[in-house]
Amino acid sequence: MKVCKFGGTSLASAEQMQKVANIVMSDAERKIVVVSAPGKRFKEDTKVTDLLIALGDKALANEDVTDALQRVVSRYEQIANDLNLSKDVVNIIKDDLLSRLATKEEGEQKFSDLIKASGEDNNAKLFSYYLQSLGVDANYVDPKEAGLFVSKDYGNAQVLPEAYDHLYELRNRKGILIFPGFFGYTPDGELVTFSRGGSDITGSIVASAVDAELYENFTDVDSVFVANPNVVEDPVEIEELTYREMRELSYAGFSVFHDEALIPAFKKGVPVCIKNTNNPTAKGTMIVNERNYLINPIIGIASESGFSTIYVRKYLMNREVGFGRHLLEIIEDEGLSYEHMPSGIDDTSIILKGDQLTPEMEERIVARIKEDLDVDDVHVEHDFAMVMIVGEGMKEMVGIAAKATEALANVGVNIYMINQGSSEVSIVFGIIDADADKAVQELYNNFFVETKDPVA
Amino acid sequence: MKVCKFGGTSLASAEQMQKVANIVMSDAERKIVVVSAPGKRFKEDTKVTDLLIALGDKALANEDVTDALQRVVSRYEQIANDLNLSKDVVNIIKDDLLSRLATKEEGEQKFSDLIKASGEDNNAKLFSYYLQSLGVDANYVDPKEAGLFVSKDYGNAQVLPEAYDHLYELRNRKGILIFPGFFGYTPDGELVTFSRGGSDITGSIVASAVDAELYENFTDVDSVFVANPNVVEDPVEIEELTYREMRELSYAGFSVFHDEALIPAFKKGVPVCIKNTNNPTAKGTMIVNERNYLINPIIGIASESGFSTIYVRKYLMNREVGFGRHLLEIIEDEGLSYEHMPSGIDDTSIILKGDQLTPEMEERIVARIKEDLDVDDVHVEHDFAMVMIVGEGMKEMVGIAAKATEALANVGVNIYMINQGSSEVSIVFGIIDADADKAVQELYNNFFVETKDPVA
Repeated sequence: MKVCKFGGTSLASAEQMQKVANIVMSDAERKIVVVSAPGKRFKEDTKVTDLLIALGDKALANEDVTDALQRVVSRYEQIANDLNLSKDVVNIIKDDLLSRLATKEEGEQKFSDLIKASGEDNNAKLFSYYLQSLGVDANYVDPKEAGLFVSKDYGNAQVLPEAYDHLYELRNRKGILIFPGFFGYTPDGELVTFSRGGSDITGSIVASAVDAELYENFTDVDSVFVANPNVVEDPVEIEELTYREMRELSYAGFSVFHDEALIPAFKKGVPVCIKNTNNPTAKGTMIVNERNYLINPIIGIASESGFSTIYVRKYLMNREVGFGRHLLEIIEDEGLSYEHMPSGIDDTSIILKGDQLTPEMEERIVARIKEDLDVDDVHVEHDFAMVMIVGEGMKEMVGIAAKATEALANVGVNIYMINQGSSEVSIVFGIIDADADKAVQELYNNFFVETKDPVA
Repeated sequence: MKVCKFGGTSLASAEQMQKVANIVMSDAERKIVVVSAPGKRFKEDTKVTDLLIALGDKALANEDVTDALQRVVSRYEQIANDLNLSKDVVNIIKDDLLSRLATKEEGEQKFSDLIKASGEDNNAKLFSYYLQSLGVDANYVDPKEAGLFVSKDYGNAQVLPEAYDHLYELRNRKGILIFPGFFGYTPDGELVTFSRGGSDITGSIVASAVDAELYENFTDVDSVFVANPNVVEDPVEIEELTYREMRELSYAGFSVFHDEALIPAFKKGVPVCIKNTNNPTAKGTMIVNERNYLINPIIGIASESGFSTIYVRKYLMNREVGFGRHLLEIIEDEGLSYEHMPSGIDDTSIILKGDQLTPEMEERIVARIKEDLDVDDVHVEHDFAMVMIVGEGMKEMVGIAAKATEALANVGVNIYMINQGSSEVSIVFGIIDADADKAVQELYNNFFVETKDPVA
């Protein structure tokens, strides 16, 4: 049994829905289909989820919602028309939206989640209706009735353990099941959404719960690439990578996957395949537990800009038991999360996302570190990029760091920080923002250019 | 005005004392001479300080001290005889020791410091007596009378700020001043020693206090080498390096200098010269505030064995505010000090000296981390070496990391950790112990072999 999830662009129009229907019907193992809300049809288009947020905001501001509501309904209406479906389904969707809008007084966050979630919910109904019109035994699944129970954290629901047992029962249902992504219900029946992009989370939870042989995540790219196509021209495709590699890559500049989405599949060991709705015969990228690391010890190069560093120097710092802990306490106290803490003998740097800092906060932190820790020097520097090479194979291979640092030296990039933990899934280089693109390009040249074959 | 300090081997015998006298008399700027206790004359010899520790232990155990006392007195006696000095000075030393031994009841730590400090104190008297016998206007200085005030931390005295003002007055005294190293007095007159090797500290304090133009530290090597001569054959000499570079090197395997010794000189900016008593015309090694980094961005390669690593992995670790702080709290709580904490996205390693850990402690720490932090994996690994390349010039130079990692790859050394902070005085490579020597040798080959000129 396979669970497939289709993203917003895969379900944005009648034409896209036809592709999805063909994909679903072409493989009898595709039993459960998790759907997103209709996404963008073209670059300047607006996603239905964003239309819904605007509609909810207007309602809460007690403004007239007629136009905003019509914009949402029109999207479904156009798909239904183009698919030659009866007007009934559009009326069902419109009534559903009106009944949601009527609950405005029950609380802002609750209302907001309810409105947002309608995007996926109604699209699931529409798609199910469409499949039925093709003679397919398709059935919309209500997440409440199926028991997708979550915590009551509006906009950031966490799945509850019992949900997995409930959802396991989906295996026994007949036909193809159309499951709306993005939301679940508290045990007392209140709708709560996952964090944004949460249809990936739904798919991963359902795939894990029914013990799927494969979780197919359909999007609009043929595969994950070893480097950002906006930086490197026509980069090599990744055939297979591990959960941990995907996680490191998605962290730094690879936006294919929602960070948390993989957890349920990862914990259950369900393999994930990223495929293209517009080119379903392309092999896609497999995300697995283990791969053969010998062929390609390195699987990808990621880069992210906008880091700052808080540099602290104190003679004999390393003799002071508790220095690092005290420093991190100040960082935590200011509500900051940090990425790395490389250290020398007498100095240490805290590397963190720069957008967390304001000039006032910087001044206060510097003053606190100076005062509490009696340091010789403390200052903040900005505009660093973290460039990361990722691959589980580097652990067993000699010379990876040499190859990477040689690439950076080749193009005159100065390295301000290197961080390689004992896990060796990645090496991180801190360089200045302005050097990031040429660093990624040259790392790509050094690690991937000879082959040009898809890597696995 | 120069302050010179002579180590134990420089004052271990009459022959050595003659060399020191010649050095002192050959330069009229050498005004203040800080002396250690007599050290080893040959490999199997025992330092006077160690004889004194044995003597003190015997006294505290209420055993007969006659032999132990005689062994100490004999060392001074032989030097006095060989220098044709009168027996008076030996009697003065013997009486001094007897009067110290008589204070046994005043407290163990106090007594122990008093006995140990006699090694330097009596050697200063003896050397002063010898210089006088040569017609030199030499004067022993009593640190109490001169005002070298320290905190009452037995065996680990910290200099008090007022000491610098008192000692400044030494500038106005006549003749050559012979100052015993290793100890000072609390403001209420109690003798307390510095940590072991503390004559370097005395020299550095005095040089700073009198605002010396140079602090000469005489030992038994011509200079500091860029790598350990026990690993690399006939390594290049260092002509000049900075305080920070010396500090990083002395931390990891370079035992030339006592860690804390440089602080006073460093804070005042007094340059330090390391010279050889047995070859005083050799240029020695200068330790300065700034050097020209362009010629030799790297100044040395150090290595230390016996590190362990506590590896921790948890999915989405980096999202958990306070994770690093909490982890370090456990480490601190167990009384451990750590060296580095490299981190990936979902994992982090604590690298620390392995001799701090017992199997029971390891088990307890692993259990605590598992329980308190709910991690996916935590385990301890042993037998790592930290190899460090040091040089303030690497900050401005592209390609240093490439050159270093290339060297390690050349000889098949796998890198388990790289740590380079934003200060860039050093890069640390974590490798397995067994690879340390070949790593140092090849790094030496890559960075220093072309030149073979002394580096600065």
